[in-house]
Amino acid sequence: MKSMKISEAVVRRLPIYLRFLNELNRMNVTTVSSQDLGSKLDLNPAQIRKDLAYFGEFGKKGIGYDVKYLIEKIRQILKLDQRIQVALVGAGNLGRALCNYNAYLQDNMKIVAVFDAEKSKIGQNMNNLTVLPMSELTDTIRELQIRIGIITVPASEAQNVADRFVEAGIEAILNFAPVIIKVPPHIRVHHADFTTDLQSLAYYLNKEEEA
Amino acid sequence: MKSMKISEAVVRRLPIYLRFLNELNRMNVTTVSSQDLGSKLDLNPAQIRKDLAYFGEFGKKGIGYDVKYLIEKIRQILKLDQRIQVALVGAGNLGRALCNYNAYLQDNMKIVAVFDAEKSKIGQNMNNLTVLPMSELTDTIRELQIRIGIITVPASEAQNVADRFVEAGIEAILNFAPVIIKVPPHIRVHHADFTTDLQSLAYYLNKEEEA
Repeated sequence: MKSMKISEAVVRRLPIYLRFLNELNRMNVTTVSSQDLGSKLDLNPAQIRKDLAYFGEFGKKGIGYDVKYLIEKIRQILKLDQRIQVALVGAGNLGRALCNYNAYLQDNMKIVAVFDAEKSKIGQNMNNLTVLPMSELTDTIRELQIRIGIITVPASEAQNVADRFVEAGIEAILNFAPVIIKVPPHIRVHHADFTTDLQSLAYYLNKEEEA
Repeated sequence: MKSMKISEAVVRRLPIYLRFLNELNRMNVTTVSSQDLGSKLDLNPAQIRKDLAYFGEFGKKGIGYDVKYLIEKIRQILKLDQRIQVALVGAGNLGRALCNYNAYLQDNMKIVAVFDAEKSKIGQNMNNLTVLPMSELTDTIRELQIRIGIITVPASEAQNVADRFVEAGIEAILNFAPVIIKVPPHIRVHHADFTTDLQSLAYYLNKEEEA
């Protein structure tokens, strides 16, 4: 793989390609064209070809992409062939919902520890995980070599949790709290923000009225 | 506003700008530079200037952007000055968590109706909304002029719910089920997929090891 910088937009589309390719693979489909990918995923086929070309020449003109080969390549690129342990802080409704997604997280990526500051939550069972107190956060993250932290606490608590994660040596954070958190530059933060998702949809709602 | 096509990446960044600008406004900050925006939001200042230039010349060289004016403009662009009613199907943990975000949804955008197919869920209270049966979906969507539908049902049910939304006249869908749904081309679908969020984070985890 070339050591060029790949834009976040591309990195964010790769898992979407992967999911559809896995679906095709389960249906024993062996090749797929960028047209098919584009029509299914509502993306421009030229964009898809451009995205995948970052990583080498996978497709064959007139035939398309080999599904299994492309799955393997994308998994390598995203490093999903490694084991990646995930911790979650905030055992509320959202935290519980995300733990249920463990079933959809293929490969070696799993939520393996859940924490909460509230006494009433500690000891509860969440999809086969026991909610742990915050006092065990650092040790657990180090012992289990957890690399990604998920924040599902209220906005007012998010920065505090981020600080704890950073202190414990986490490398990346997925923040669901509707607030911007500040971390050192070597930590990667993605915001999974429902409110901004909805607001960007609003832009498309009104498109027809403008025309 | 020019009637050019704005890329989805830009549209998705606008709510993020908006959130930070609202924070600044609450702190009585009146102007902000693209450098400040960039450093706070972890984005390239040149990218921010380019994004905002789509909508006209808001910034002044050496001074920056007028916070209030920029808030007003982004709200207009995203059409957040309109009333936008939202329906949600799937009154599980995730549905409940999203209803709690109503408090963060400023402006006129709110979840106003929640539905579930399961008898045990119907009649339950979710953040001041009563869970309704699926049989009331179409009438409720039409009566309340609901334009956006949220899907928080299991993957196996998502397409069925999408079909019901489309039938009822919804214009856009935010799909949380980890599955690709098929809708007519005039309906806009965004996927809010936790699993792909996590997978794209994995890409950044391993960056240092490559260097």
